[in-house]
Amino acid sequence: MFNEETRLSVPIRWGLVGGGRGSEIGHSHRAAAARDHLFTFVAGALDLDADRCADFGHKMGLDQDRCYPHYKAMFLSESQRDDGIQAVSIATPNSTHFDIAKAAIEAGLHVICEKPVTLNVQDAITLKALAEKHNRFFAVMYGYAGYPMIHQAKEMVKRGDIGKVRIVNMQFAHGFHSEEIEKFSEGAQWRMSPTVSGPSFIIGDCGTHPFYLATLITDLKVTSLLCARQSFVESRSPLEDNANILFKFDNGAVGTLWASAINAGSMHQQKIRIIGEKASLEWWDEYPNQLRYEVQGEPAQVLERGMGYLYSDIDAVGCSRVGGGHPEGFFESWSNLYHRYALVIDAIERQDEEAQKSLWYPDIDAGIDGVKLINSCVKSADAGAVWVDYE
Amino acid sequence: MFNEETRLSVPIRWGLVGGGRGSEIGHSHRAAAARDHLFTFVAGALDLDADRCADFGHKMGLDQDRCYPHYKAMFLSESQRDDGIQAVSIATPNSTHFDIAKAAIEAGLHVICEKPVTLNVQDAITLKALAEKHNRFFAVMYGYAGYPMIHQAKEMVKRGDIGKVRIVNMQFAHGFHSEEIEKFSEGAQWRMSPTVSGPSFIIGDCGTHPFYLATLITDLKVTSLLCARQSFVESRSPLEDNANILFKFDNGAVGTLWASAINAGSMHQQKIRIIGEKASLEWWDEYPNQLRYEVQGEPAQVLERGMGYLYSDIDAVGCSRVGGGHPEGFFESWSNLYHRYALVIDAIERQDEEAQKSLWYPDIDAGIDGVKLINSCVKSADAGAVWVDYE
Amino acid sequence: MFNEETRLSVPIRWGLVGGGRGSEIGHSHRAAAARDHLFTFVAGALDLDADRCADFGHKMGLDQDRCYPHYKAMFLSESQRDDGIQAVSIATPNSTHFDIAKAAIEAGLHVICEKPVTLNVQDAITLKALAEKHNRFFAVMYGYAGYPMIHQAKEMVKRGDIGKVRIVNMQFAHGFHSEEIEKFSEGAQWRMSPTVSGPSFIIGDCGTHPFYLATLITDLKVTSLLCARQSFVESRSPLEDNANILFKFDNGAVGTLWASAINAGSMHQQKIRIIGEKASLEWWDEYPNQLRYEVQGEPAQVLERGMGYLYSDIDAVGCSRVGGGHPEGFFESWSNLYHRYALVIDAIERQDEEAQKSLWYPDIDAGIDGVKLINSCVKSADAGAVWVDYE
Amino acid sequence: MFNEETRLSVPIRWGLVGGGRGSEIGHSHRAAAARDHLFTFVAGALDLDADRCADFGHKMGLDQDRCYPHYKAMFLSESQRDDGIQAVSIATPNSTHFDIAKAAIEAGLHVICEKPVTLNVQDAITLKALAEKHNRFFAVMYGYAGYPMIHQAKEMVKRGDIGKVRIVNMQFAHGFHSEEIEKFSEGAQWRMSPTVSGPSFIIGDCGTHPFYLATLITDLKVTSLLCARQSFVESRSPLEDNANILFKFDNGAVGTLWASAINAGSMHQQKIRIIGEKASLEWWDEYPNQLRYEVQGEPAQVLERGMGYLYSDIDAVGCSRVGGGHPEGFFESWSNLYHRYALVIDAIERQDEEAQKSLWYPDIDAGIDGVKLINSCVKSADAGAVWVDYE
Repeated sequence: MFNEETRLSVPIRWGLVGGGRGSEIGHSHRAAAARDHLFTFVAGALDLDADRCADFGHKMGLDQDRCYPHYKAMFLSESQRDDGIQAVSIATPNSTHFDIAKAAIEAGLHVICEKPVTLNVQDAITLKALAEKHNRFFAVMYGYAGYPMIHQAKEMVKRGDIGKVRIVNMQFAHGFHSEEIEKFSEGAQWRMSPTVSGPSFIIGDCGTHPFYLATLITDLKVTSLLCARQSFVESRSPLEDNANILFKFDNGAVGTLWASAINAGSMHQQKIRIIGEKASLEWWDEYPNQLRYEVQGEPAQVLERGMGYLYSDIDAVGCSRVGGGHPEGFFESWSNLYHRYALVIDAIERQDEEAQKSLWYPDIDAGIDGVKLINSCVKSADAGAVWVDYE
Repeated sequence: MFNEETRLSVPIRWGLVGGGRGSEIGHSHRAAAARDHLFTFVAGALDLDADRCADFGHKMGLDQDRCYPHYKAMFLSESQRDDGIQAVSIATPNSTHFDIAKAAIEAGLHVICEKPVTLNVQDAITLKALAEKHNRFFAVMYGYAGYPMIHQAKEMVKRGDIGKVRIVNMQFAHGFHSEEIEKFSEGAQWRMSPTVSGPSFIIGDCGTHPFYLATLITDLKVTSLLCARQSFVESRSPLEDNANILFKFDNGAVGTLWASAINAGSMHQQKIRIIGEKASLEWWDEYPNQLRYEVQGEPAQVLERGMGYLYSDIDAVGCSRVGGGHPEGFFESWSNLYHRYALVIDAIERQDEEAQKSLWYPDIDAGIDGVKLINSCVKSADAGAVWVDYE
Repeated sequence: MFNEETRLSVPIRWGLVGGGRGSEIGHSHRAAAARDHLFTFVAGALDLDADRCADFGHKMGLDQDRCYPHYKAMFLSESQRDDGIQAVSIATPNSTHFDIAKAAIEAGLHVICEKPVTLNVQDAITLKALAEKHNRFFAVMYGYAGYPMIHQAKEMVKRGDIGKVRIVNMQFAHGFHSEEIEKFSEGAQWRMSPTVSGPSFIIGDCGTHPFYLATLITDLKVTSLLCARQSFVESRSPLEDNANILFKFDNGAVGTLWASAINAGSMHQQKIRIIGEKASLEWWDEYPNQLRYEVQGEPAQVLERGMGYLYSDIDAVGCSRVGGGHPEGFFESWSNLYHRYALVIDAIERQDEEAQKSLWYPDIDAGIDGVKLINSCVKSADAGAVWVDYE
Repeated sequence: MFNEETRLSVPIRWGLVGGGRGSEIGHSHRAAAARDHLFTFVAGALDLDADRCADFGHKMGLDQDRCYPHYKAMFLSESQRDDGIQAVSIATPNSTHFDIAKAAIEAGLHVICEKPVTLNVQDAITLKALAEKHNRFFAVMYGYAGYPMIHQAKEMVKRGDIGKVRIVNMQFAHGFHSEEIEKFSEGAQWRMSPTVSGPSFIIGDCGTHPFYLATLITDLKVTSLLCARQSFVESRSPLEDNANILFKFDNGAVGTLWASAINAGSMHQQKIRIIGEKASLEWWDEYPNQLRYEVQGEPAQVLERGMGYLYSDIDAVGCSRVGGGHPEGFFESWSNLYHRYALVIDAIERQDEEAQKSLWYPDIDAGIDGVKLINSCVKSADAGAVWVDYE
């Protein structure tokens, strides 16, 4: 059970780049950071429009002089204050992640970055090296990874409850871009621009999520993949709004991933099914409190969050905040992640290496993997949907 | 969509009675109050054990001198401070609600009280009169009432989307007390004691919830009811662990309510089905983002939270905090309520009567209705499950 | 698994009263009787209109001279033939059951009769005595009782898999009569006429089904009940289109039954939930191949028809006709019943008492119970929804 | 609604090859043929063991002299009788289909053949030519194609209810061969033998089903495909127990097909999702009475078999045999197909060309398509999962 008493002597001073007025992702970051009183939101470069930034930042509780129109100004100014920010979250369009993250690390900040973390693999590797050199924390915001049932699934696989993994099926396929809505929606617009979004739309935007969750659960590594992608709304070309990927994993398992923005009528349909030699696990992000466990030859079981039959020792943090039956949701998953971020950042500051190692979170390696996925998929698809190494 | 910019110039100073270490309900209150930065938690009488109270309160961020072992001390001391609490939430066993709430109002505090608000109807009416006299806010914590789909349902009924209501079926039937767990669980223990819990266990503990939601949605008034109750775990007698209630409503509609703690294997099963002359609505608290809408002679529809086809003008507050598809849950419902509480308390403080009227929340009348339900059910059941007036 | 090789040396010669052109129930009887080649359809009094009877009967494969406009003529004529019918099914409106069944028995026929078997309890008892006196088979057509999962549930209760039964909740609540469709539909019309339908509409028409299934599964006896009924379409009065019933059983268990024809938007919603001291069973007739088994404190399980983990020795007849995964439906349930009817009738003809005893089927006692249910409900409801003995 | 009055003046005399004692598929054919009294089962080569064939055939109602140990004997002998069979169903292992079907046509018989119809495309084309030359009926037993909701879906696509089709996702993925059960099960054994089963196991055994249904619904043609297949139980190699296929269709749509026998814990999971520019349709064979219709931006709808809102003019035969709410299942789907077979065979015999054209059924072209699917998949997979033409 969640331990509300986990507090830091002083909460971590935290800032945010991007996520200004009207940004849903900005709200998600702020709400998750504030949830457990482990972070204090004290500075922001929320908006390139200086007035709007100041106005909105102020509404969010920032002092006027800590509402910055540009991240560079923020990093500079905050680094000169005794009470300057210690950590920053980056919630801007993809193409800007690298420069901002690099600058943040170099300014001595711990970093939480949206995914895909960079536009290419090399940049992601560079960030990893930089974070290591400066001994800075670097998390990549795979926001679904905080759901307790994901960790129950991981533990079940680890303990052999499904036998050796044979198949990993993944999908995140919504229908919200069935029409060319980017004509009217700014939030959709940049995602369709190769310059800003990078070489992929929906694989990066959605496909990386179940990919991360499934590899987290199974601990398998992809060796090669094949990707077919399409732009059903033609103006999106070369960026895809639908993709199908086939995988080979290092243990001989195979997998599939369907990412789509044109699955008309669907809400999310982010689903993961892990099939082992003797049983399968299935999880669906729209109903995250349940985990199906299907042993061949036995009645299918539905495991519920918060129940005593779950593995209780899977993680010391954030497993359940309210009793089973009560639904937890998206915000709990994010809060569970920010909770971990705070504890690890604190451990780094305290130079407590044991504590650092004891806590899992989606790190820069997870970020690199996501960019590799995009990179390999684009390479495969653009060569005519052929098999390529995962790299 | 939720407006994160809704802030108060100064958050409301807020205290809590009960909800100490290990209390799930205490965490729920604190998390909901903190969520939107509209309350500041500054004082607490969280535990009758002074040391534990101080220790736990301090962990929760309270100053040592504002951790009170008794609510009376808290009300007295806080009322003498310039920065004393303005509002208090009461999360203690049922039998203590009346005295604490009365004292709170008399100390000039706005009150948020757990349900059932009192052990008998007269006490609840007394609290209402007292709150009116002192012009204090009084909310009763029907925590499920903050779910957006409940308000969508209410608006649909109001607009005639299901025709005149004929039947209201309600249930909240879990299985967590199938065995005599009160032998081992303190939290369960007091609920089985007539002295502390009042004349009912599961009707009060669970039945009042869907009853409130359904009467909120339909705006119907009960005229008479019949209740049969049982103590399947015999040591619980005279308190029931299972009850079935039949209702007659003022418009000619009828209804049923099933409240149970011994529905073995069930998580919550809190469900409401409203049947009209031409269509039905059904909502299930374990999957609160969905609302079934079944028009006779048409395919059943599943409405999803956060979608454009919902009535957008149903409420200015807290309808959706994240886009459809992402699940919201229990904590969002509670936060949506505390959000409203803050705005109304602020309106009272500002003597803004229009703002007070514009905002719905579960008020003392809702509390009185819940106690009437319990009172009438017990009267009916103890007379052999006969029809009695709802009073 | 179903044994297709179960055949009789000569199939039973079978006739049908009612069920003429356009009758869905007539088709159901004919299809079920023919399914396993254990009956031969050779005579019918399908329609009171002689021409239509002859025309339709001929289409159904009857010889012209064995299409009778009246059941009396059929019984007389057939009894004088060497190859006359041995058994007859009665699929006519309720008020006619008694006379036809009585005449059938007196003509030496085995009888399969639609439910409710008679308009009052005494008549049903009379039929029982008559059938015993003439040593004739008498089944009452509770058509859902042939589903394999019902028998799996019965066996599970018997073996103690859910512990002592505490609660039996039943419902059959569709929405097809939300409006006054009897204005346009002949099939609906007679059901609303007290003279033809008897003192109840929806309790008799639908409520008797889950009542039979649940008492079959649990083997419990009702001691007393209370019924509230309404005619939401007023012209139906005094016949109800909605009813709620509370039960007390002989072992201390309680129960509820909701029967409705105005549950707008619902297809059937025939559901049974049996709650024991340690687990619950739930079955839904719209998805009859599944049975939920929920043990308190364990993950809920979904049992599937046709699987090896089911109790295989529950019944020698008709458990599964195709492998699990493939859905079986309504017609298999009916066929499984007719299959049993044939074997028992054959055993009676062969004077094989052991075989007679070894086979369960819904017999005249089940029919009497259904009429008692109606009788008691009407008595209770008409006295103002008070407790009455079940009789 | 199903018209029970559709009868032939004389039912078609029908025989069966294969499907002896213990064969589930044999029972399915016999039950479907008998269901509507349009066929009479009069001869069989049910088993290569002459004694067992005679014994079992007799139990099934055949005259002793019409129980043949070999199909050749049956075709010869029956062709010399005045009352010889007119049609034959072939329910034998794959490798025998061609010879038997060829012999049947040449013996003047109408043919209903299990799928895959032959081991290679050329043989299937040969059968088509032969059937045309002899003017014989040739159906391929895609048994799921008789479900009414499949035809509702087809009509919806045709009328533009989902817009232009973009994606066709198909799967049939059960878990019954997760272990090497062919060691113990004869029925499983031949399916793993390339000599008997052909070049594919699960694509042919299961994958062809949703492929047929989806192409039937959408009327799209595959242009090219890519298939990756595995033998997770190694002894099955080169036959696959799991396969993933990517498709390109002639209208620019894409598709996927997952066929598996090692999807541990799954019953069938035969699902089809057709995604159009504005809406999607989804159907699941385990719950065949429902069809999901999801219009982007509107609440998802669940269409139910038997309801007035369905397109009633989609087919003159076998749409619904019982009212909505009552579940129909596997046997109704098969019976609806055999019903069509009988009418078309009768039309051929009567030389009524109009009637022949008016009735859809899964014909030899459907059979050829299935073999092309297998052929192309094997070619693709064996070349390393590369794109190949569909041929």
